[in-house]
Amino acid sequence: MYVPEFYYYALGMAGTVAFAVTAVLAVIPKDIDLFGACVMGIVTSVGGGTIRDILLDQPIFWGNDLNYIWVALVSSIVAFYGNRLMERRYVYSTMLYLDGLGVAMFVIQGAEKTRALEFAMPAGPVLLGLTTAIGGGVIRDVLAGNTTLFMKKELYAVPLTLGAFLYTVLLNVFPNHMSLVGIGCAVLTFLFRAAAIHWKLHVPKWMLLRGKKE
Amino acid sequence: MYVPEFYYYALGMAGTVAFAVTAVLAVIPKDIDLFGACVMGIVTSVGGGTIRDILLDQPIFWGNDLNYIWVALVSSIVAFYGNRLMERRYVYSTMLYLDGLGVAMFVIQGAEKTRALEFAMPAGPVLLGLTTAIGGGVIRDVLAGNTTLFMKKELYAVPLTLGAFLYTVLLNVFPNHMSLVGIGCAVLTFLFRAAAIHWKLHVPKWMLLRGKKE
Amino acid sequence: MYVPEFYYYALGMAGTVAFAVTAVLAVIPKDIDLFGACVMGIVTSVGGGTIRDILLDQPIFWGNDLNYIWVALVSSIVAFYGNRLMERRYVYSTMLYLDGLGVAMFVIQGAEKTRALEFAMPAGPVLLGLTTAIGGGVIRDVLAGNTTLFMKKELYAVPLTLGAFLYTVLLNVFPNHMSLVGIGCAVLTFLFRAAAIHWKLHVPKWMLLRGKKE
Repeated sequence: MYVPEFYYYALGMAGTVAFAVTAVLAVIPKDIDLFGACVMGIVTSVGGGTIRDILLDQPIFWGNDLNYIWVALVSSIVAFYGNRLMERRYVYSTMLYLDGLGVAMFVIQGAEKTRALEFAMPAGPVLLGLTTAIGGGVIRDVLAGNTTLFMKKELYAVPLTLGAFLYTVLLNVFPNHMSLVGIGCAVLTFLFRAAAIHWKLHVPKWMLLRGKKE
Repeated sequence: MYVPEFYYYALGMAGTVAFAVTAVLAVIPKDIDLFGACVMGIVTSVGGGTIRDILLDQPIFWGNDLNYIWVALVSSIVAFYGNRLMERRYVYSTMLYLDGLGVAMFVIQGAEKTRALEFAMPAGPVLLGLTTAIGGGVIRDVLAGNTTLFMKKELYAVPLTLGAFLYTVLLNVFPNHMSLVGIGCAVLTFLFRAAAIHWKLHVPKWMLLRGKKE
Repeated sequence: MYVPEFYYYALGMAGTVAFAVTAVLAVIPKDIDLFGACVMGIVTSVGGGTIRDILLDQPIFWGNDLNYIWVALVSSIVAFYGNRLMERRYVYSTMLYLDGLGVAMFVIQGAEKTRALEFAMPAGPVLLGLTTAIGGGVIRDVLAGNTTLFMKKELYAVPLTLGAFLYTVLLNVFPNHMSLVGIGCAVLTFLFRAAAIHWKLHVPKWMLLRGKKE
């Protein structure tokens, strides 16, 4: 392994913080209490990976490493009481980009875990990579009664899908460069998503229905 | 096996097409984009069987046969861009009947898989048959923010319940005629559901609350 | 085992009755039919324990003991047709307390099962205890389009969390008194919840956001 595990882990935790914080901020308008905020933060952070592990019939990842839970819990509490700070433009914007970093990493990590187990090849890594990245947020929206991301115009899922797809293709071509391909795809995915955040990009028109009856 | 596997498989795929198409048509009014439509199509098609396999602790069925995913994906894309065609009366009506065929087959198939594994006998086959047939549609409605079928008056779940129940009873009486009993029950279930579609049947009055306060 | 299994079992069934009845009463305003009512009753009764068993990778508990299903089914039917009786003040109030007894028992039972399997120690028992107790009700609310308990001010989850936490701590101190600790914590949890029902207690102010923008 050329790339130190530590970096992966640190980035994974950064993603967990971002997931929990953005989750709590997303549900505060729903008049939630501290307990609800913590549940939402934890579920958003670990929900996607949990569904992935259930589908793969693997032990749930946080069962062996509670740091994911603790970090999500503390982040949720801080975000709950510090929501006014968190909602300041630059803090919130930082969180948005961290969330982008989180989904970019989790989509590749989920794709890699699926590929290593050769589940549903070749589509499995893309499907479960996406599940890992967006599953938690979808559960949160369902529990909070919010509209799920599938009904939003934001360019959120498309970069993730392309990233997971690119990872699967490139790893087929360069099977001996897993670390490099993984990092490259995560970075590209993040840059794409960051561009979408920065320029407020929407899904392209050909992905929408033209002339829809209302 | 007296009945060629091929017919089962072809009917299973027809059901998958119908599930994906009716799912996409059901969420288009929600202003969904192509990505969302594909997610909804796939989730609706394979969601019920996936929950069943998780409960049975079996490998997820589409993990070994991605045709279910591909067929659902292509059907979703076609339904999305061809929604005006799909919404024409006779095309939509065809899809409704195909959906009826799909649920009729999936309820029996789910019941049979559960029975073969002797899970929670004798109620298991009915419970997991129903889960297989309606689970995907329920997840779709939850993700899309639509009312789930439990709050609708349509005669949808009753034929399925009766079909799975009949299958379990008959197979107890004629344990050596699995294929015949299976096909017979699927056909009966479909005919019952088709009658409900054709005559727009509602659940009978004794299944509703009389004199409900509003 | 000092405490007769029979009491546990009888209390578990009492909790199942209460879960099913309160579930049906909660969805009747949604204009549900008998089928939907039964699904809601069963899902609410066994949903939480089912998620717990999936996360623990254990056989689903009702797969080996259908009494949970039968009791939930019959309770749902009785509650559906007898809803006017059930909604009378003292009957409904009895059901509320039985529901409190149910969650108090299920949270400890779920915590104990998780602890025995040493899943995600030391947080696992609290997390999965809570999942066992409230998971079914959350699924019900999602399926029925109701607001989930996370957005309510009622003092519901807090007693459960404290109960599971206390159980985990006390069992660490007194590892040889499982039955006693378990019963004690279930009783304390129930008393706390019963007090919340009786005096209509809300979550304390420090768990809410002060000066929230509306």
